[in-house]
Amino acid sequence: MSSTAGQVIRCKAAVAWEAGKPLVIEEVEVAPPQANEVRLKILFTALCHTDVYFWEAKGQTPLFPRIFGHEAGGIVESVGEGVTHLQPGDHALPVFTGECGECPHCKHEESNMCNLLRINTERGVMLSDNQSRFSINGKPINHFVGTSTFSEYTVVHAGCVAKINPEAPLDKVCILSCGISTGLGATLNVAKPKPGHSVAIFGLGAVGLAAAEGARLSGASRIIGVDLNPSRFEQAKKFGVTEFVNPKDHDKPVQEVIAEMTGGGVDRSVECTGSIQAMISAFECVHDGWGVAVLVGVPNKDDAFKTHPMNVLNERTLKGTFFGNYKPRTDLPGVVEKYMNKELELEKFITHSVPFSDINKAFEYMAQGQSLRCIIRLHE
Amino acid sequence: MSSTAGQVIRCKAAVAWEAGKPLVIEEVEVAPPQANEVRLKILFTALCHTDVYFWEAKGQTPLFPRIFGHEAGGIVESVGEGVTHLQPGDHALPVFTGECGECPHCKHEESNMCNLLRINTERGVMLSDNQSRFSINGKPINHFVGTSTFSEYTVVHAGCVAKINPEAPLDKVCILSCGISTGLGATLNVAKPKPGHSVAIFGLGAVGLAAAEGARLSGASRIIGVDLNPSRFEQAKKFGVTEFVNPKDHDKPVQEVIAEMTGGGVDRSVECTGSIQAMISAFECVHDGWGVAVLVGVPNKDDAFKTHPMNVLNERTLKGTFFGNYKPRTDLPGVVEKYMNKELELEKFITHSVPFSDINKAFEYMAQGQSLRCIIRLHE
Repeated sequence: MSSTAGQVIRCKAAVAWEAGKPLVIEEVEVAPPQANEVRLKILFTALCHTDVYFWEAKGQTPLFPRIFGHEAGGIVESVGEGVTHLQPGDHALPVFTGECGECPHCKHEESNMCNLLRINTERGVMLSDNQSRFSINGKPINHFVGTSTFSEYTVVHAGCVAKINPEAPLDKVCILSCGISTGLGATLNVAKPKPGHSVAIFGLGAVGLAAAEGARLSGASRIIGVDLNPSRFEQAKKFGVTEFVNPKDHDKPVQEVIAEMTGGGVDRSVECTGSIQAMISAFECVHDGWGVAVLVGVPNKDDAFKTHPMNVLNERTLKGTFFGNYKPRTDLPGVVEKYMNKELELEKFITHSVPFSDINKAFEYMAQGQSLRCIIRLHE
Repeated sequence: MSSTAGQVIRCKAAVAWEAGKPLVIEEVEVAPPQANEVRLKILFTALCHTDVYFWEAKGQTPLFPRIFGHEAGGIVESVGEGVTHLQPGDHALPVFTGECGECPHCKHEESNMCNLLRINTERGVMLSDNQSRFSINGKPINHFVGTSTFSEYTVVHAGCVAKINPEAPLDKVCILSCGISTGLGATLNVAKPKPGHSVAIFGLGAVGLAAAEGARLSGASRIIGVDLNPSRFEQAKKFGVTEFVNPKDHDKPVQEVIAEMTGGGVDRSVECTGSIQAMISAFECVHDGWGVAVLVGVPNKDDAFKTHPMNVLNERTLKGTFFGNYKPRTDLPGVVEKYMNKELELEKFITHSVPFSDINKAFEYMAQGQSLRCIIRLHE
């Protein structure tokens, strides 16, 4: 039992007071975990586009003040009543989606869309009592997707915490708790390319490059990267991408360009941009007879996926995935092991690193489009 | 070698002289098979909606005079040069799509969409020389989808002929050469329900009922039939359909009705109507996390399949199939064996039978919506 168990912890957190305004490092109070909750000491966190999207709060109901952050690694400080799979000192990854273990999704071998702990971006409180565990002078501060890792300590539902190998370096594997696993799993668990296959990846940000990494691990012989920004092509080579297509360079739709490059279409495609046009292209660029397209990127509210039904009838498959189809508690420890046994490379995703006090720089790097992942070091 | 090999055969055929007009039994000349072709004596044929669709010729370039027919069973009369897998006397099913054995689709384990012999509804001649093998007093008569089985003898590309067990009764297994295999394979090969699964079948015609038969064979525990015509429900019970939904009985979309009946959606759905609205409903009625929807029905030229991309991202799968994903030559003999070992029931699909002279009655039965399959007996 740690000496802080059961006590309010006072620590530093980066608070977003207003949409789009720089975060402010504040001293916050973090309440002890309640039943089925865990309090984590966050050692490293990274910035993901989803943090930025909700921080900008465009076209959403704004929820401020709020503590963002959801890609992170830490150590269990204390656990609430009923928590059996974690104990103080365990190394862990908090995840924005969970695994209750009891619902039809958790019991189904193919789904990871837990009914109880599925991502909820509009909730700023804990599930059990609709209260926040964060406060400043008694005034509550909103949580974000149940993780709020831009804080030295945070409270998370135990179903959203994966216990991992304590030898795994948290400053590296912390990026597995969102984007990298999302892209990697989209390829390994859903698209499932076979050795020698051709794979098109739409969008060469961190998620798309993780999807490419999955294709490389699968033994794909051609990995075609599609992006509107040609400056991403050089970097993508490190991730096994062998060819590049910039839709802006062509008068015809990119699906036709890819079909011509590949004798009728690729074996697999993975869409990581969230653009509806890219989703349609990703589907239509797979080969008839056997091609599989996987959608990863999150669309706008009013988008419509539209294709001629003959494109489906000609034996193409369209699939979607959420968090790479990984069940957070069951599967993430195995992804960490893939890194530990040097199958999976993570270092190449980490382009920047800043101390907690410079967290706003991580936002700037992302805005400049130069960073893949910027690690934020919380305790040093 | 039969005595007729190499000779023109004069025999009866049912000729469609004009769109939508009753067929006329005529004496036709059937030329000998050329290289890679087979001349078949057709013993039994059945009428399928696709025959009627092209006979009505609405919204198509009409191609008349023409000999329709593509669901049939017969005996090889003679073979052209280079045909090695068939010889005179073999029992065989001609198929509207083929298997050349050499193209990327034939070599791919998942595809049956042969590049060379894929269905072509607009061609009225043989592939090798762009000539018809049928004539009346020297005037050519058009073929239909390479089969033209409404004739006592017909010439078919050898790649479109499946050699089957000679003990199989051709008056039953003839219906495996199109609709029944299409529906059955959609379920067994593509939707692949597991024992205990719930399956929704859209459209309770012969193809849909064959899809239901596939669900029954797979051990599905609930088979929900969806049709606008409630008179089909009683018949569907014989095919294992356990529950019925008539979209006309509900104010809400049928996908919502099915989701409510099944605690969030069915495990599998198979769409056998060709209506674009039914396709969308069939996709949206499968459970998030694991549901698989399979499209079988052929849409109109200008249809657009449209859904919110979140329906895909929530881990649903959309697949299409052509001829139940069966490779005609490789796989149909095995489907015939399923009937021979009493796993698959075919008798219940055969609601009518007429002599060749009454072939137009088969069209009437179908127009009245009472028949599933009407067998036409060519030689008696």
